[in-house]
Amino acid sequence: MYLTGDTIAAIATPHGEGGLAVIRVSGPGALDIVSKMWRGKDMTSFSSHTAHLGHLLQEDGGILDQAVVTIFKAPNSFTGEDTVEISVHGSLWIQRQVMNRLAELGARPAGPGEFSRRAFMNGRIDLAQAEAVADLISASSKAAHRLAMTQMSGSFSRKLDSLREQLVYFASMLELELDFSEEDVEFADRAELRKLAVETLDTVRKLADSYSAGRVFKEGVPVTIAGAPNAGKSTLLNRLLEDDKAIVSDIPGTTRDVIEDTREIGGVLFRFFDTAGLRSTDDTVERIGIERAGEHIRRASVVLWLLDATKPLQPQIDELKPYREGLGSEVKNLVLLNKADLVSDMPEIPDGAFLISAKTGKGLEAVMEAMTTAARGGHDIEAELTVTNARHYEALREGAASLDRAIEALDAGLSADLIAQDVRQSLHHLGLVTGAVTTDTLLTTIFQSFCIGK
Amino acid sequence: MYLTGDTIAAIATPHGEGGLAVIRVSGPGALDIVSKMWRGKDMTSFSSHTAHLGHLLQEDGGILDQAVVTIFKAPNSFTGEDTVEISVHGSLWIQRQVMNRLAELGARPAGPGEFSRRAFMNGRIDLAQAEAVADLISASSKAAHRLAMTQMSGSFSRKLDSLREQLVYFASMLELELDFSEEDVEFADRAELRKLAVETLDTVRKLADSYSAGRVFKEGVPVTIAGAPNAGKSTLLNRLLEDDKAIVSDIPGTTRDVIEDTREIGGVLFRFFDTAGLRSTDDTVERIGIERAGEHIRRASVVLWLLDATKPLQPQIDELKPYREGLGSEVKNLVLLNKADLVSDMPEIPDGAFLISAKTGKGLEAVMEAMTTAARGGHDIEAELTVTNARHYEALREGAASLDRAIEALDAGLSADLIAQDVRQSLHHLGLVTGAVTTDTLLTTIFQSFCIGK
Repeated sequence: MYLTGDTIAAIATPHGEGGLAVIRVSGPGALDIVSKMWRGKDMTSFSSHTAHLGHLLQEDGGILDQAVVTIFKAPNSFTGEDTVEISVHGSLWIQRQVMNRLAELGARPAGPGEFSRRAFMNGRIDLAQAEAVADLISASSKAAHRLAMTQMSGSFSRKLDSLREQLVYFASMLELELDFSEEDVEFADRAELRKLAVETLDTVRKLADSYSAGRVFKEGVPVTIAGAPNAGKSTLLNRLLEDDKAIVSDIPGTTRDVIEDTREIGGVLFRFFDTAGLRSTDDTVERIGIERAGEHIRRASVVLWLLDATKPLQPQIDELKPYREGLGSEVKNLVLLNKADLVSDMPEIPDGAFLISAKTGKGLEAVMEAMTTAARGGHDIEAELTVTNARHYEALREGAASLDRAIEALDAGLSADLIAQDVRQSLHHLGLVTGAVTTDTLLTTIFQSFCIGK
Repeated sequence: MYLTGDTIAAIATPHGEGGLAVIRVSGPGALDIVSKMWRGKDMTSFSSHTAHLGHLLQEDGGILDQAVVTIFKAPNSFTGEDTVEISVHGSLWIQRQVMNRLAELGARPAGPGEFSRRAFMNGRIDLAQAEAVADLISASSKAAHRLAMTQMSGSFSRKLDSLREQLVYFASMLELELDFSEEDVEFADRAELRKLAVETLDTVRKLADSYSAGRVFKEGVPVTIAGAPNAGKSTLLNRLLEDDKAIVSDIPGTTRDVIEDTREIGGVLFRFFDTAGLRSTDDTVERIGIERAGEHIRRASVVLWLLDATKPLQPQIDELKPYREGLGSEVKNLVLLNKADLVSDMPEIPDGAFLISAKTGKGLEAVMEAMTTAARGGHDIEAELTVTNARHYEALREGAASLDRAIEALDAGLSADLIAQDVRQSLHHLGLVTGAVTTDTLLTTIFQSFCIGK
């Protein structure tokens, strides 16, 4: 299916009806094919990067639409191939007809991500950059956008390439020893090799460790609001969402859980989960709700434990205790004392807790700041390279494991061929990230998840 | 709100996430505003109709996206003003950020249809052509597309303009008589005037009459399938839709009626309604269903009356009779004898009826041909100008009424000033169609129904 050398076409703009839609055609036949359905100036005379008004024709010679074509000639296009972008009126019918007509004239409908795949095959971008394009398109917060832009710019790839370069040098030294194995010489200084392997391992591990932060920035930070019934959880949710309704959206859950709502705060996307009130109960339906709440608490990055400041605090804390037990250290717990507006005798505020009023909004600024700090987890996406892609994370972990084995082999004074094997393996894994090492299956898996037209 | 002279911006591509999205900026400040968020070659040096790769910047100087800008300089753009089309990665977040940034830099978010309104104000298109753009975007069949293309090309406007020209000539002759009213001369030959008024009226009426055909071509031809329970209505519906599922779509009803499904047959969009089986019943719920079926029958352009060929026909015909009575002559009735595959003794086929098998598909070709012929109603959209717009229809009817009065006044030998008044009124009404006569309210009403970005 993934031939290169043929010409592909796809609707590149979002699916639907609108003012205009863009159909992208790429491949050696792009100009030739489009010119067969074109009435206007001679398309072969067009220079690269120019736009032209004319008419697209139907098979019977009737006018399909008035259109603007923009020409990008190889290699100065996204794919590196001759590309024609056809801008038509955004009717679904016209979009479909243009695609049908292009297919009749020899442009194959593109598979998902096939334009990006061609850009990769033609050396226009590496694999990590191609994946960043897909991330960029789905980025829904400033942080997620920033991470995708950095990856797309190639900083991440350059970092990995420089690590691989060092390893390649040592691998070649080791290989040289193998060639002279009869003579028992050491071209690769073992102490220096060990030092570099440790440095590389350190960098690779740091990158891999950044994934837990990177993932939440990319996907949104799950925040669960937990507390007894009537502690004011729903009021808090509404309050957290309300002052900027425009960027609030409903996102259907990917599994059986329903995500209540999302909001970008301080550049970070938060995904808020409202839960059933937590209490002992014999009611079966209510217990299912509470079990669900428990799941959300365990999956959250931040849990907002909501207490009612108008009631004695200790019994409430005791009641919530079972749900807090056994949570991993990566979960940030924030204790909020709600209903500050109704309290006359201020209770003693437990250490680190926030006194708020979900009703009036009092004290919430500080809570949002704490949430944002907790979400960033001390990780500075402006300053540090951050891994956001599960595939990259796996490759880095495998690469780190190979490096670890190489260091062990060095420490045990093992022979060059055994050390070389581990170094080669780490090279392989790190190479998978940028596409220095690829397989057809890998490429297919990656690009299949892209949208069509990209 | 509808200033000209300022610069407007809107997302022109369909709403959503995709490979790319296009933001259109139009107005005297377009180049200046976009260049303030542009990192790349100097935008003021760009020629019209050229495309350029560069980066869009955020307020803090960070990169918002890699983008291609295409420049269209006044007057050679859709609006007739300087226009910049910005092609960005189709992330919702990026689209929103670009719009926000443009607003900060002085480009006002465009109202619905505001680009088209500017094209009209700048004399790039007339009103009927502008309305055709909106029709073109929502066209969902070959016939609807054809009608919108014809109107967009200006044929309709030229026809009306030539009619108005003749009327203007006579109006001016009549006005001249008024100037010399003391002298009792007739500059306008009454017989010739009458002849031309009758000819014009004839054309205007023909155009107005084409609206009933034009409307169904544009909106889809409603076809109701009616018959006794178990006559095979649902099987027929599935069969009518099945051989080209790709262009079948679910459209939610605009009122309480649910449109079952649509399909393009022979270039015409049909909207099929499946109905409850028709029979006498005391069941309340079933009776509501049957009442609904009755409504659909009355609203249809074509009714497919489905009889069961394996049962005696006359009782079935009698049962359906109450629903057929009182239908207007504009409703085309087709009688189908279903279950041809199960009949051993072929019944006598009533005149004009079709013997079919919804199960095997036998005989349906002929039914679809009859439906398409009925839908076209003898109207040839290839050869004749066709009105599809309710506003144009009203204006034409009013114009025809004024002409009718002018002819009556001529026949009654009334004075020039009375005749002139009717001719002027008809000029006014016909002028409303192309925008030769406009009011701000009219323009606002028309362009408000457009999508944003068009």
